[in-house]
Amino acid sequence: MTGAEINRDVLRSDAPIGVFDSGVGGLTVVREIIRQIPNEKIIYFGDTARVPYGSKSRDTVTRFSEQIVRFLKTFQVKTIVVACNTASAYAMEALERDADIPMIGVVKPGARMAAEMTRNGKVGVIATEATIGSGIYTQYIQNLNQKVTVYGKACPLFVPLVEEGLWEDPVTDEIARRYLTELIDIDIDTLILGCTHYPLIRSTLKKIMGEGVTLVNPAYETARELKEMLEGQNLLCTKAPGLGSNQYQFYVSDKAEKFVRFANSIIKYGILSAKTVNMEAFDGGIDGDMGGFSQPAIQAASAG
Amino acid sequence: MTGAEINRDVLRSDAPIGVFDSGVGGLTVVREIIRQIPNEKIIYFGDTARVPYGSKSRDTVTRFSEQIVRFLKTFQVKTIVVACNTASAYAMEALERDADIPMIGVVKPGARMAAEMTRNGKVGVIATEATIGSGIYTQYIQNLNQKVTVYGKACPLFVPLVEEGLWEDPVTDEIARRYLTELIDIDIDTLILGCTHYPLIRSTLKKIMGEGVTLVNPAYETARELKEMLEGQNLLCTKAPGLGSNQYQFYVSDKAEKFVRFANSIIKYGILSAKTVNMEAFDGGIDGDMGGFSQPAIQAASAG
Repeated sequence: MTGAEINRDVLRSDAPIGVFDSGVGGLTVVREIIRQIPNEKIIYFGDTARVPYGSKSRDTVTRFSEQIVRFLKTFQVKTIVVACNTASAYAMEALERDADIPMIGVVKPGARMAAEMTRNGKVGVIATEATIGSGIYTQYIQNLNQKVTVYGKACPLFVPLVEEGLWEDPVTDEIARRYLTELIDIDIDTLILGCTHYPLIRSTLKKIMGEGVTLVNPAYETARELKEMLEGQNLLCTKAPGLGSNQYQFYVSDKAEKFVRFANSIIKYGILSAKTVNMEAFDGGIDGDMGGFSQPAIQAASAG
Repeated sequence: MTGAEINRDVLRSDAPIGVFDSGVGGLTVVREIIRQIPNEKIIYFGDTARVPYGSKSRDTVTRFSEQIVRFLKTFQVKTIVVACNTASAYAMEALERDADIPMIGVVKPGARMAAEMTRNGKVGVIATEATIGSGIYTQYIQNLNQKVTVYGKACPLFVPLVEEGLWEDPVTDEIARRYLTELIDIDIDTLILGCTHYPLIRSTLKKIMGEGVTLVNPAYETARELKEMLEGQNLLCTKAPGLGSNQYQFYVSDKAEKFVRFANSIIKYGILSAKTVNMEAFDGGIDGDMGGFSQPAIQAASAG
C-alpha cells in the first residue's frame, strides 16, 4: 500500500477491485478473494499474450505492469491487487510510486506470514527465476525479523507442468523432489509458495516436504490483508451486487477461450467469457490521465 | 518465398540475412545456415520478452512477427528466414503478402522433405499447440502428396524441458514417451521435429521412436533451401567477410545475458554479446517505409 498521492474521497466502496497476473495463476488469488469477501466486484486481467513473466527482466515486467494498471483504472477500480509474484517483486515499487489508489502485492503478505510462522528461523521460498533473483522475499522477511534466514529456489518447470494439467503426477513428483531436496537438507520449517500457480500442486509439495513444514500460500494471506485494508478505509462492499450485475469480469491479452477453460478448473464459479485486450494500446500513457484510454483496444470477441 | 512486389535490383549479395524466432530456438536454424553457407552475414532477432509463441493466437503471433520484420529491414537484409514454426504457421501468409524481399519459413522445407521421405504414407509432426492447431504441416504435405496422412501431436512441455537444460534426462524420456506413444502405435515412418527447440533433444526422440523412423529436422532443410534460393537469384555471398566485420549479430527483446549463455550452448561460435530492443516501437509502422525506425529502440546494453 502507498500513501502520498491517494485521494480517498473519490474512492467508492461499491467500485470493483482490479486484479492482475501474467496469465491464469492470479486466479488462485481471485479464488481466495471470492471466499473471504464475497460481495466484492472483481475486474481480472491476465496477460496471456506475454506470459510468462518469471523469465523476463525487471524493466520489461515493470513496463507490462504499468500498461495493465492503466487498463484497470479505466474501470474506476478502488484498489489493485498485483496477483503475480514476479510483478510484485519487480514492479511494485514503481507502481506504488505512481499510484493514486491503494495497491497490494502478493509478496508482502506471504513474507509477513512466513516471518510469523517459522520456529527455527529457516524459511524457504520457491518461485520463478525472476522472483528469486530479485531477493524480494528475503528483503521483506529480514525487515521483519533479521534472525530469519531465507533460502530461495527457482522452479521454472512448475508453471508449465501445472498448465499441462499434471497437478498430481509422477513427473511433477520427480521434478519437485529435485527442486526441493536442498531445502529439505537445509531443514527449513516454513515454505512460501512464491508463485500463484503453486497452490495448485500443493498436495505434491506437502507430500515431499513432509508434515513438519508449514506451507505458506500468499494468495490466502493477500486476500486477508485486502479485506483488512478495505475495512480499515471504509471501502469494503457491504451489499452483494444484484443478479445480472456482472460481478466478476475477466480480460486477457490473448486466447480468451483457453483462459476460460483453465479458469473454470481453478474457480468453481462457471466463468462464461473473457474479453481480449491489446495491451500495446496502453503503453506510455500519462499517469493519472486515463481518460484517453477508455477501453478502445478491447475486442468484443468473448469466448464461451 | 513470394513474388509480385520484390525488386531484386536493390538486393545485394553482401547484405545480411535476417533470421528471427520467438526466442532461442531459431539458433538451431542459424547453426545450420552457418554450416551450409559460412560466408553469409546474419542478423538474428529473438523475441525473448514475449516468448513463447506456441501457446498464443494467430493474430498476436502475426502482429509480433510484423514488428520484427520491420526491425530486421532497418538492416537492409536481402532475405528473412522465419526460424520459428509457430510464426511460419500463423504469420507467413501475411508476411509474404507485404514482403518486398524474399522470405523463407521453416515449415515448407520440412514438409517437403517429409513428403519425399515417407514410404508408408504416415507422417507424424510434433510441435507447439499453435503449429499443430494451424494444421499447416498437413496442408503443405497434402498439397505435395494427397496420399500421405499427417498425424500432429502438440508437445507443450518440450520447450521448457529444453530450456531447463534437461536435454538427456529420465524426465524428458518419460514425457517424450507419453507424447509419442500414439504416433508409435499409428506406425508412422517419418517424424517432423516441428519446433526449433526439438533438434536439441533429437537423441531422446530417436531412442523412443526407434531406428525405423526418419526424423526430419526443418532447420537443416531450411538452410538448404535458403542456399538454393540465394544461388538461384545470384544473392549468395561468395567472399568471407573480413575480420572485425561483425558477421553474426544478435538482438533480443529481453535478457541479453541469459540469451548469450544459452546461445553459446547451441552454437559453438563464442557469441560475446546481444543487444536489447523494445519491439513495441516497431508496432503499426507503414510497410515499406522503414526510414523512421532506424534503430531508435535499441539499448546499448550488451551482455558479455
